[in-house]
Amino acid sequence: MGLSYPLFLVNFKSYRGTAGEDALPFLETIERVSRETGTRFAVAPQLPDLRWLADRTDLPLVAQTALPRERAGMGDVSLESVADAGVAGAFLSHPERTVGLEALRPAIDRCRELDLESIVWVPDRETARAALALEPDCLLFERPADIASTEGMVRTDPERIERFVETVLAADSGTGKRPHVFVGGGVRTGEDVARVFACGVDATGAASAAVEADDRETWLRAVADAVPGSLE
Amino acid sequence: MGLSYPLFLVNFKSYRGTAGEDALPFLETIERVSRETGTRFAVAPQLPDLRWLADRTDLPLVAQTALPRERAGMGDVSLESVADAGVAGAFLSHPERTVGLEALRPAIDRCRELDLESIVWVPDRETARAALALEPDCLLFERPADIASTEGMVRTDPERIERFVETVLAADSGTGKRPHVFVGGGVRTGEDVARVFACGVDATGAASAAVEADDRETWLRAVADAVPGSLE
Amino acid sequence: MGLSYPLFLVNFKSYRGTAGEDALPFLETIERVSRETGTRFAVAPQLPDLRWLADRTDLPLVAQTALPRERAGMGDVSLESVADAGVAGAFLSHPERTVGLEALRPAIDRCRELDLESIVWVPDRETARAALALEPDCLLFERPADIASTEGMVRTDPERIERFVETVLAADSGTGKRPHVFVGGGVRTGEDVARVFACGVDATGAASAAVEADDRETWLRAVADAVPGSLE
Amino acid sequence: MGLSYPLFLVNFKSYRGTAGEDALPFLETIERVSRETGTRFAVAPQLPDLRWLADRTDLPLVAQTALPRERAGMGDVSLESVADAGVAGAFLSHPERTVGLEALRPAIDRCRELDLESIVWVPDRETARAALALEPDCLLFERPADIASTEGMVRTDPERIERFVETVLAADSGTGKRPHVFVGGGVRTGEDVARVFACGVDATGAASAAVEADDRETWLRAVADAVPGSLE
Repeated sequence: MGLSYPLFLVNFKSYRGTAGEDALPFLETIERVSRETGTRFAVAPQLPDLRWLADRTDLPLVAQTALPRERAGMGDVSLESVADAGVAGAFLSHPERTVGLEALRPAIDRCRELDLESIVWVPDRETARAALALEPDCLLFERPADIASTEGMVRTDPERIERFVETVLAADSGTGKRPHVFVGGGVRTGEDVARVFACGVDATGAASAAVEADDRETWLRAVADAVPGSLE
Repeated sequence: MGLSYPLFLVNFKSYRGTAGEDALPFLETIERVSRETGTRFAVAPQLPDLRWLADRTDLPLVAQTALPRERAGMGDVSLESVADAGVAGAFLSHPERTVGLEALRPAIDRCRELDLESIVWVPDRETARAALALEPDCLLFERPADIASTEGMVRTDPERIERFVETVLAADSGTGKRPHVFVGGGVRTGEDVARVFACGVDATGAASAAVEADDRETWLRAVADAVPGSLE
Repeated sequence: MGLSYPLFLVNFKSYRGTAGEDALPFLETIERVSRETGTRFAVAPQLPDLRWLADRTDLPLVAQTALPRERAGMGDVSLESVADAGVAGAFLSHPERTVGLEALRPAIDRCRELDLESIVWVPDRETARAALALEPDCLLFERPADIASTEGMVRTDPERIERFVETVLAADSGTGKRPHVFVGGGVRTGEDVARVFACGVDATGAASAAVEADDRETWLRAVADAVPGSLE
Repeated sequence: MGLSYPLFLVNFKSYRGTAGEDALPFLETIERVSRETGTRFAVAPQLPDLRWLADRTDLPLVAQTALPRERAGMGDVSLESVADAGVAGAFLSHPERTVGLEALRPAIDRCRELDLESIVWVPDRETARAALALEPDCLLFERPADIASTEGMVRTDPERIERFVETVLAADSGTGKRPHVFVGGGVRTGEDVARVFACGVDATGAASAAVEADDRETWLRAVADAVPGSLE
């Protein structure tokens, strides 16, 4: 299915209070805020819930990890199985889950065959230039140190994000198509979301800030206010 | 919930034809053979299907991998989430998914708290003696080279399995309790199953042989004939 | 050769100023302090220097990592090669370099054949009980969070170290032999060294504190004062 | 120092008979064949011997693995330490030692600062295009299945190598500089070496075939005959 942008992704990782039945009211709140504000949200649920939740929500779901079936061993999650479950995309790599250069191309190609949005993590512009050659659908630009931080680059160094967006735009001038840019790490408030979209990105998201918000609906509405565009 | 023994486990790993809707007729066949023959079966489904299938079967399910929540990062599967999904146990390590010695005790302890059967892989008797000190519920005795092989130790060296069982029995003479012994790797036919239970083990299982059987029901009935005891 | 105890180990890891020619004056200082104070020191040099330094010092050297040759791939260090280089022992696992349970027994056995001291890391007493079954020569008791810390358990929780020593002593009452206990992590001063030996350990060591000392000789003499016993 | 081409690399990996004193006659043979035939050879010794051998040979040495110091933990080998030991280059990744995409750029940049030849492994042309953006000095094109094989692509699919070389040449038409191409895997005889150089590569090498040759000098002379160019 792939993902549509602009987008805000709520990442459950393995947080308490986001598995199984606990996920349902959270998803309902996100759906309501999405519907009422016309803002695109996606969710990366806990892996064992993936298909169960896909039956219970219209929100696009993203697999926290996956790889081509023929490379999957015991305990791995195949791209084929998450596509079959109805998810829209998959993180092929992430600051907390690095993947060898050699594994990316087969995974990106398989995503294309399965109509899954392929999301590949890069820590800097130079690495982004390399990743561009593999033609992923979406580049996740995130510094490992920014995870769960209150001092992420969105607050301390937005120019870095702007330069990253420029690099991606410039690199693709020839082909006319370019991957989407997702900036993650340290996004904690609606103000952060506004600031990161002002840098020209296509998507951002949060994990701990979303899960730990005192009032999730209030938090989500503040985020929705800051995501440009609408679902129409 | 834990697992009951003697037991035969069908492991879906990431095999084609075992995800989502494809899993349902397979599970129904296993349920029918289990019910009609009075034989205990368990299934290790593909991870994204875990909760969805738990709602659809009475067979005990086992997670192919999991670790304590506080150690789980992006893309990991927490013991808490699989317990919440209603599974009976989890492979904490496996020949295709090794785990550092330091990670086993916290995972085994967490399984105990969550009432999950903890399954720990050991490649030999000496390593089993070490694992016994961590008090897992079940030791998986498997040689990496035997996976998907037609020359597993169940065929070439059953005495090795007998000595393994003796080691586990002997090591626990003091406490009166001992982990169950699960022998895996290269089990392909009902004859293999009979031979491995004749060595004194509590459980065995198959992945490729079960999934690739020409007629799964016939295959499962041959296996069921060879599993001692009954569900009553 | 193995190691003799009590012992203080200086670990170079990959610190600046400890490779090649830079290592020589450091080793000479350690040798001089060792000789003049009658204190046993050992050194874990940077790996590419191992054989070169073995030719240039009488101090026992320890490999920062190694594994049996038949398991060694490109870029790995074999136990056979470090034994051949003349080192006295090897860290088979470490908080910064965890090793699967299944890999420990073959490595410990190979160390015994090669007359290398086998050092295995455990994070707690329960894991130590498991490791004891594998009969390593030395258990490294260290908490990952204590590395390069000024708040290591030697300062905040010496009773934990005492209980660890008791566990190792108790577990071996039958055999009459027991592994040596090496406590690491957060040892920064002679006082720390005295405190950790007062808990009954056989060895301790330091990395950052040793390398970064303003005056290495003064620092080493303070340490030597706190190591019990003598070289004669 | 970097490496000069055309080049044949003998990789000791962890093979028996290539560590320490055993390495010396092997290196002397390679030096003699190199000198007498005017052929460039390089050697990747066992890691603990690196500095010791650098003192004893004029052959360029290559580290089997290394990474920037600030990313090196216990048991890792830093680029700084191997540069200090006098080696000419380092494998930053390899089929037996994969490295995350995010780690390559810092390692390649550090090699440039340290005047080390940076060698990066890619399994196919598409991945090579990505790696080119990181500007490594040398691309190692090798299929994991070809290692120690007698059916490597040099024998079964030389066109694949030609296409790889074309991809690298084409990709760099703009900049005027391009990385060298090193093809590995399954090179066992002088004929293989001739065939692979006929595809336009800059370097090749062998591990098991070199170490296990009945008569190493004869084997090396056959190889030298097949390497184009000369040392003058």
